[in-house]
Amino acid sequence: MNMKLLLSALALALGSGYTLTAFSQVKPDVMVKQRQAAMTLQGKYFGPMGGMAAGKVPYRADVVTYNASLLDALSRMPWDGFDASTKDVKSAALPAIWGESAKFKQAQDNFQDAVQSLVRASKGGDEAATKAAIGGVGKTCGGCHQNFRQKQ
Amino acid sequence: MNMKLLLSALALALGSGYTLTAFSQVKPDVMVKQRQAAMTLQGKYFGPMGGMAAGKVPYRADVVTYNASLLDALSRMPWDGFDASTKDVKSAALPAIWGESAKFKQAQDNFQDAVQSLVRASKGGDEAATKAAIGGVGKTCGGCHQNFRQKQ
Repeated sequence: MNMKLLLSALALALGSGYTLTAFSQVKPDVMVKQRQAAMTLQGKYFGPMGGMAAGKVPYRADVVTYNASLLDALSRMPWDGFDASTKDVKSAALPAIWGESAKFKQAQDNFQDAVQSLVRASKGGDEAATKAAIGGVGKTCGGCHQNFRQKQ
Repeated sequence: MNMKLLLSALALALGSGYTLTAFSQVKPDVMVKQRQAAMTLQGKYFGPMGGMAAGKVPYRADVVTYNASLLDALSRMPWDGFDASTKDVKSAALPAIWGESAKFKQAQDNFQDAVQSLVRASKGGDEAATKAAIGGVGKTCGGCHQNFRQKQ
């Protein structure tokens, strides 16, 4: 198979929600799946850090540094998935996401800023400061979940 | 709510698959959900690049650099989810993952190496080289999907 054919096939197989003519034309249900995937992985990498900051699992600086670096990437991923076209797709997203979009954007920014603080703290090597920064991220998770997500 | 309580609540809410006593005790169905989430997001960020390399969407160097940087993080995420404890969870994963684990590991490494090459190429600013590197990543996606994943 030549490279162009291979890439076309892959683009179809992997990006089945993409029309490949514009970035904005991802299907709403695919956008919901992608943003939920980002949240799932934020949970994967934040979960153990939350446990460490709460004293429920032994603190491991190397794990925190690694998880924080991946959370950095993940903290950027969900937001374009909250497109207005997804309003009618079944999910836990509340209408306030679109009705109070400035407040929602602020909550995203607070989370991303807190993750950046955690990344810096985790590189600094101070356990207490790093645990405090983990707590800071946790608070900003709640900032979105309390106001923009159905109670589970 | 004090910080310890907040963090405990968050750890429970976000990391519901974690026992919080050991990193290895994530429930098998949660591990499958997490690794599938990583693949979903690899599709999100690779899809448009595949389209560009195939000439189906206009090339945008800034998008490639950004997507490649996120793919870098995502390329590290699925693999610990292929734990032997997940063998019986329904998914497209083939038994060869555990039966030919050295070959599976090699396929992971090939993918991660190709993503690193793409990250470097995307920073270099040479469109043709970057498109070739996108193709290189695409080939290594196939390296896993052909041998270790049920045909869809």
